[in-house]
Amino acid sequence: MLISEIYKKHESLDQKEVEFIARVRSHRQGKAVSFLVLNDGTNFKDVQVVYKSDIKDFEEVAKARISSIISVKGKLVLTPGKQQPFEVVATEIKILDQAIEEYPLQKKEHSPEFLREIAHLRARTKKFSAIFKIRSEAAFAIHKFFHDLGFVYVNSPLITSNDAEGAGESFVVTTRTDDKYEDDFFGRKAALTVSGQLNAESFAQAFQQVYTFGPTFRAENSNTSKHAAEFWMIEPEIAFADLNENIDIIGKLVKFVIEHVIKNCHDELEYCNENLEDGLINKLQAVLDSEYKVMTYSEVIEVLKDAISKGHVFEENNIEFGLDLGTEHERYICEVVNNAPTFVTNYPKDIKAFYMKKNEDGKTVAAVDMLVPGIGELVGGSQREASYDKLITRCNEMGINPDELA
Amino acid sequence: MLISEIYKKHESLDQKEVEFIARVRSHRQGKAVSFLVLNDGTNFKDVQVVYKSDIKDFEEVAKARISSIISVKGKLVLTPGKQQPFEVVATEIKILDQAIEEYPLQKKEHSPEFLREIAHLRARTKKFSAIFKIRSEAAFAIHKFFHDLGFVYVNSPLITSNDAEGAGESFVVTTRTDDKYEDDFFGRKAALTVSGQLNAESFAQAFQQVYTFGPTFRAENSNTSKHAAEFWMIEPEIAFADLNENIDIIGKLVKFVIEHVIKNCHDELEYCNENLEDGLINKLQAVLDSEYKVMTYSEVIEVLKDAISKGHVFEENNIEFGLDLGTEHERYICEVVNNAPTFVTNYPKDIKAFYMKKNEDGKTVAAVDMLVPGIGELVGGSQREASYDKLITRCNEMGINPDELA
Repeated sequence: MLISEIYKKHESLDQKEVEFIARVRSHRQGKAVSFLVLNDGTNFKDVQVVYKSDIKDFEEVAKARISSIISVKGKLVLTPGKQQPFEVVATEIKILDQAIEEYPLQKKEHSPEFLREIAHLRARTKKFSAIFKIRSEAAFAIHKFFHDLGFVYVNSPLITSNDAEGAGESFVVTTRTDDKYEDDFFGRKAALTVSGQLNAESFAQAFQQVYTFGPTFRAENSNTSKHAAEFWMIEPEIAFADLNENIDIIGKLVKFVIEHVIKNCHDELEYCNENLEDGLINKLQAVLDSEYKVMTYSEVIEVLKDAISKGHVFEENNIEFGLDLGTEHERYICEVVNNAPTFVTNYPKDIKAFYMKKNEDGKTVAAVDMLVPGIGELVGGSQREASYDKLITRCNEMGINPDELA
Repeated sequence: MLISEIYKKHESLDQKEVEFIARVRSHRQGKAVSFLVLNDGTNFKDVQVVYKSDIKDFEEVAKARISSIISVKGKLVLTPGKQQPFEVVATEIKILDQAIEEYPLQKKEHSPEFLREIAHLRARTKKFSAIFKIRSEAAFAIHKFFHDLGFVYVNSPLITSNDAEGAGESFVVTTRTDDKYEDDFFGRKAALTVSGQLNAESFAQAFQQVYTFGPTFRAENSNTSKHAAEFWMIEPEIAFADLNENIDIIGKLVKFVIEHVIKNCHDELEYCNENLEDGLINKLQAVLDSEYKVMTYSEVIEVLKDAISKGHVFEENNIEFGLDLGTEHERYICEVVNNAPTFVTNYPKDIKAFYMKKNEDGKTVAAVDMLVPGIGELVGGSQREASYDKLITRCNEMGINPDELA
């Protein structure tokens, strides 16, 4: 039986026999009884197993080390009022695989740096197990959201000769040790994609509603919490849609994913709330319950100027139209000013990509960023320029060679 | 309104007004009435729009070229007995974007080679639209299957210094134009992964049931229909499972995906059945209805020998224990011998990877391939060797340096 099943049905299993295989998370010998805390990976919460010295192979069982794999037969007993809802009184325990004595994960706090050195083991810790499970459920929610709306899932090629919007430095993909790319595998220089967007746009012209959800690569040597050489990104593209529909779908997606994770990762979120980020669950719930705000970039600039005139000091305090908003500005807007997730629209054209639709003012484009408390920018999007001539003009203005986008 | 919605509700929309935006697939002027065949990408089947010369801007509308984007208002009229279930009698048509005269996709058959040259347009053809939609639905079914069983979705890193099982030639990922990889982005030689399996195995030790579903890369210069430099692969890993559980889950996954696609891609499959592969739907249905067969590799060898002795000739006719079965052998087994998808188990250890569990006979390993009619091998798997010492011995026997797997 999986421990996840035992947890689901535990109320109806009182005094009944259960049987499972699991890994030892901790082991404590008492005078009269001993305690094994076990987990088989299918449930965030552990199972406590109690055994006494009259159990078969007691001497052997008593030696079970942390991380050993054991099988357990026993009687489930509800324990109302205790921390865990039930425990299992063992009638039979077998050690299937005894762990080594120097097993690196012991019952204490381990630093992230140390866990990084033993990356193959870190998913067994509560911290990473919570994070990876939440990631998995969030990924499923993303697929479900788009699927149920009729979006077609598109896999943009990762090996490409197109550098998208010049969104970042790219990694070269090669079978050579020189730069004679004309003799390389693909007969020309190839790189890892920095965005699947342009490919997704061509599919949106076929299916109207599409999304990519896959890996993306940036060879930027920035060691910040917002940069990774390899990360997964969601890129929806919708034909015939304007900025309002863009805002609408971003907002619905974010709420859908949060709702799914709150429903399916209750224990994991509780752990994160208690151990990693105080107030996390309230913060997520607040997004769910919030009405999103919408402001133009120009309004944001005015509000930030106003804040400075009233004594607020930003690290980048030189607030003028044209400024690329930093995380401090973004968080000020959604945390202090609006206390709600905020869509900022109509950014200056010079700080945005060439393919965004120019507004009638000639200065701004129909771009939108979603800012959320605690993070700043979570999602960025835009209405795309649909006029071929305007696109070419904009490429020329920005020094982009359209041929390299093909 | 999306055309998919109009199709869904068309019976209740008789004589009612509908309005939509779509692309022209064909345009035919008759004496009394003219016909536009339109599609907005959300539905495989097109909508036929009828208009007469009394429509506003008739002269303009009459010029709408293939691939132009138009908006239509009109009355839906059920057409029982005709090929399409309804048509729309237009009251207003606007050309939102007139296509160029030389638009490459015209109303005729285009070769795959030609379509490859215009890859950004090919998803608009019936053929590729059917294929990409089926791919999208199959991907969703795969996620749903594993999610509902409690599997955790894991994203194995794609940039890696580990060459897995030596499964194939790999692409180097670099920011340099020489081989001084110690000065490269990651401080050592890095490549695109050929398999996420080893990473998934370490996650299976944490979560018990996990799967990867992501891109994989092979730098093999083989131009066959079974080789691609970049492709998506599903790699489930289950702790504490033996070969029978392996077979069970493979069989269920394949049936689940087929059932989902048959249910959700009816029109696309009909198109493929009529235009790409005669009998396709029957073939899929036959897998769904079949009881899977299980044979050992040794039994397969005997059956193949027997076939030869009765006069059957294979291209590779030298059938001995140790032979790596070719597609011709695999298809003979599942098509001629069993007429059903067939699991072949216990392959010779020398033609399989080092990490598979050796059977007691000392000659074979607990590997399994699923063979399906029309294809041959569709899925490969194995019970993993769980003994560290045996793994190291096997690595040494096969000349694999265990340090390079870390």
